[in-house]
Formats: sequence, C-alpha cells, structure tokens
Amino acid sequence: MSELRQDRITGRWVIIAPHRGRRPNAGATSRQPQTRSPFDPHCPFCPGHEDRLPAIISEIAIEPTPGWAVRVVPNKYPALQTNVDAAGLNDAGHLARDAYGWHDVIIESPRHDADLASMSDAEVEAAVLAYRDRSRHLLVQPGVETVSVFRNHRKRGGASLAHPHAQVIAVGVVPPNFNDLEQHGRAYHSAHGRCATCDEIDAECGTGVRLIEETPHFAAAVPFAATMPSEICIMPKRHQASFSNLEEPELREFARLLRRALDRLRRVHNDPPYNFIIESATRANLSAAFVHWRLRIMPNLTMPGGFELGTGLAINPSSPEADAAALRIAF
Amino acid sequence: MSELRQDRITGRWVIIAPHRGRRPNAGATSRQPQTRSPFDPHCPFCPGHEDRLPAIISEIAIEPTPGWAVRVVPNKYPALQTNVDAAGLNDAGHLARDAYGWHDVIIESPRHDADLASMSDAEVEAAVLAYRDRSRHLLVQPGVETVSVFRNHRKRGGASLAHPHAQVIAVGVVPPNFNDLEQHGRAYHSAHGRCATCDEIDAECGTGVRLIEETPHFAAAVPFAATMPSEICIMPKRHQASFSNLEEPELREFARLLRRALDRLRRVHNDPPYNFIIESATRANLSAAFVHWRLRIMPNLTMPGGFELGTGLAINPSSPEADAAALRIAF
Repeated sequence: MSELRQDRITGRWVIIAPHRGRRPNAGATSRQPQTRSPFDPHCPFCPGHEDRLPAIISEIAIEPTPGWAVRVVPNKYPALQTNVDAAGLNDAGHLARDAYGWHDVIIESPRHDADLASMSDAEVEAAVLAYRDRSRHLLVQPGVETVSVFRNHRKRGGASLAHPHAQVIAVGVVPPNFNDLEQHGRAYHSAHGRCATCDEIDAECGTGVRLIEETPHFAAAVPFAATMPSEICIMPKRHQASFSNLEEPELREFARLLRRALDRLRRVHNDPPYNFIIESATRANLSAAFVHWRLRIMPNLTMPGGFELGTGLAINPSSPEADAAALRIAF
Repeated sequence: MSELRQDRITGRWVIIAPHRGRRPNAGATSRQPQTRSPFDPHCPFCPGHEDRLPAIISEIAIEPTPGWAVRVVPNKYPALQTNVDAAGLNDAGHLARDAYGWHDVIIESPRHDADLASMSDAEVEAAVLAYRDRSRHLLVQPGVETVSVFRNHRKRGGASLAHPHAQVIAVGVVPPNFNDLEQHGRAYHSAHGRCATCDEIDAECGTGVRLIEETPHFAAAVPFAATMPSEICIMPKRHQASFSNLEEPELREFARLLRRALDRLRRVHNDPPYNFIIESATRANLSAAFVHWRLRIMPNLTMPGGFELGTGLAINPSSPEADAAALRIAF
C-alpha cells in the first residue's frame, strides 16, 4: 500500500511506496569501496599543488598543528563568474544573460583520503566554520540573492575529484526550490502564526518515530515525506532563518551531529554516494520568521526514473520510519 | 564564459556552462555495452511468462505477424492503487492519504533484446499507439487529473528490467512540473496572446541552430535552455494541448521521428541511459490554447550534484548548439 504524503516545510507531495523496493534489481547499483592514499600526485587539492589552484581565498588552521586544515579556493571551472555585467542580452527572441556569481571550493582537509564522516571533531568544526564564514562573506556581495553550501560525495554523487571538498555558489537569482520554500513558508506562517519547520521539529521530537538523533540545539530526522531512501534533515531547534547566523557553541554541536549523521549513513548503506545542501534564507529574508535553515542529506541509493525527473513528483521506494530506525541504531 | 538562459516554455532559468565539461573526470561514467538475447527465461515480460504478469490489459498485433507486438499490463509493483478511497488521513499533525491512481507498463516488443531506437517503423508505431490509447483511456477515469507516459532506458536510467517497456502513471494530483508548465503557459499566453511552445517552434525552425530534424508536422530540437547535455524535445508544430488527441497520420510521423531521435542519441553517445516523458495537458486543460504537449528526452550523461538537486537550478556543462549539431549529422 502506498501513501501520498505532504511535506509540511516544502508543501510538496511525495509518493511513499516501500513495496517498490522489493522489485527485481531495485536499489543500489554495485559500487567499489574507495581505496585512496593520503596523497595523490595528480590531485590539485593536495598540499604542494598550489600552482594548480586559481588562488587561495582563505585558510583555517587547527592549533597546534602547523599548516592549513581547511582551505577556500575559487572553482577552476566555475558555473558563474564575477567579471561580467548582469545586463540582459537576446538571442533570436530568447532571454539570456551572463551568469554572474561566485563558485568556490572548500577543501576540507589536506589529506586526500579524509572523509567528513570519520574526521576528528576539530576537523569537522573547521570545515563547518569555513562553510559559515564563506556564506557570511558572500551574502553581502553586490547583486547576490542566494548562497548555497553543498557537497557531492563519490563519483556517482557528482564529485569530479575524490579529495574531500564542499562547494559554495552565490547567485543573483533565487533558485526554484529556495523560492518555493520561502513562498510556502510565508503562506504557512500566515495561516498558522508559526514557522513550519518549528512545528515540524516539535512534531518529530514528540513522536520520535523518524528521529535519528536529538542534541540540545539540533534535531536530525528522516522527513515524514522524504523524497528518497534515508534522506536526513538536520535542523536547529531554535528558530534561525540563515545558516550564516550560526554561532558558537551551536556551531560545534552542529558539526559533530553532521559528522555522526554521515557516519550512520556510511554504516547502514556501505559508504553510499550522497549530496548535501544547506537550505537557508535568501538575502531579503535573513531574519524572517517564516524561513528556517536546515541541512538536507540526499543519499544516492536509487536511480530516479522518467516520472520523477519529468513531473517533479518523487516516488520514495522506502519507509521513512524504517529508514530512521536503521540510522538511529547505527552508531 | 557561462550564461543564464530562460526557457520560454517552462519559465525556468538554467546555467549553461560548457567549459565545465572540460573538468577532470567530468562526463559519462563508463558503461558496458548491453548484451541481451532475444529471450530471457527469467524475464516476466518475455512471451510464455504470462503467469508472472498481474493481468493483461490490452494487446496490439501487427498484421500479418501472429501474436502480440505490444502489450499493456499493470505494474506488479505499482506506485499507486485504485482500490483505496482518497479521503485524507492524519499522522501526528501530518497530511497524508492513500496514493490513488493507475500505474501500467507498456511492453513494447515480445523480443527481450529489442530497442525502440532500432525497431521497425511498424513496431514503433504500435508502441506509440499504445501510449496514446492508454493515455486516452486513463484520462477519463474518475478522479484522474494527470496522465504521464514515460520510459526509463538502461539500469542507470532507472530501468529495473531490461526488456523494452514504457510506463503510464495516472494520478489524482497535478505534479509540480506539470503545474508550473500550465501556470507559466497561461501567463505567457496572457502576455503575448500566443502559445509559448508555438513561439518556440517558430523561433527554432527559423534559426535552425538547435534544430535536429524537422518533418511536416513535428520539430525535434535541443532546447535553448536545455537542462542537461543532449536533451531533446519533440513538439507538434500545429498547436495541440494533449498527446491523447494525436491522430493518424501524424501519429505515424511522430513515431518515426522519435525512433530516429533515439537512434541519433545512441550513435552520438554510445547507447546512453536516458529517460523520456510526454508532457501533456492536465484533464482540465485538454484543449487549452496555452498548453502544448511535447516529448522530452533526458539523457543520463552526467551526474547532477547537490546544487542542482537542492536548488532546482540546473547547470548544463554542454552547449545546446554544439549538441544539436552533433545529433543533426548523426544519421
């Protein structure tokens, strides 16, 4: 029996069809364990290869270890550029313009074989600090409307380089999903006088059936209307619109919870490819009562088909409650 | 240099960044050629295995060949079901209901190793006839709002069975992308007094730079704001809101053009995984002036990353004009 579920935060409907996980050849495609050495002579992110980087924007060190622990650099193949004007141009009646914005890389460790899921607390905290600082910096640049921090893990997760890194994109437009999130959040807040995410956290911490882990300031849970198997959301319990406003000591707590969530995923699903993204308020709404930032981990365990890609209506061949139970005990 | 382009039909912006195709390890993951025999003793869709099918809904034969050429059957693992009521139920403050609808499979050939890209004209026409007839039948069922015909090719395209087949899903909700398409189409029609797709076809047939093939009644082109490499849209030149209204002799012409488009894709990209979907009017708008059906082929040549998945803003690491040129000559 399958169910249509509505996500309270996005307003989107999802088809939850756990019996489809039993069909022949459903589920993950085979994958090799990653065997990497601590240093790769061909990797542009490994120490000593600074001549292959376009520039170094900033570095974070962890005392008393010498050298950098986390490094922010421009993407060598950026999807956007800052040296253009944003004036519209026209191609035979079509609307187009130069793609203005920033596209940076956060190198999360000097070690080629490091993994966010198994780093030390101090290392993960340094990475999250870089995410936060770079978000904060880019959000005040001219013409920027949205900053996204995201991470692609493994080749099937879209990572073109194995060295551990996240990316930050700042653009002058509001992407469709961020727009939907704010529009739905605004409507929910008007109707209920409350933030949808705050209500969601109360409900999930109340029943506990989809909760993975709760800390003093954060909750990690599988969404009620998860769009894919073992999707995980980490949300601050106290209302906060923008990730850029995350401060110590919550930052430290968040970083550790994120590491544990990724480690649970690795244990339950054998180090799967995944993407994560930090969904956060656009520039106009940095302290709004109706937006609430969260980090969404999207494991790549099944291939979406033409229906999902074409219609935007997700079919999740898994039970959010069963997924949460497996992730909860895997630590 | 990358460009932000707006799709006239969907209203969505896309980042076109062809230089990103040059980054290390970008592009297709390796894949094996498919080696299949005409009959697989384990395949539920092969002739003689009717006891493994839930039922047979209909069959199409091609005279004078005996037996069926195309068969419509219920999906054994449906994402939706008809034996439920659509009344809302409630889970701890969440909104959920039984997933009401149809989920059928169109087996496109008795041969296990057949491929839409290399079938005979009569075989492809029979498959498209089944798509059309099943759409037409389901669109008048109680509670149905949307019918989608789609196809997943190869395992990385989400196909769990190798035997050639398409699927049809009929649901009582309007999925997000279909809703966006009609909303944008309505706004465009109000502003310009014309259908956006009709304008798009005029522009593309005029310049020809993204055109792949033009026939008397159809155009196949790479969209100006293609969301992925070698995306292909096939559109009827005469305004028609619903695929279910496609009639002979246009149906025959469309089937042949579809086959050739898939064959071009196979030649240029070495039989890649792909999905296609027929985007068509919802039940309320079957003869609307602002919706125009089309078939969208989405090749699976690159892995979308966390940015695309999380924000809904596509980054296409390819040039639509270069893709169209390669597809145009590959026949």
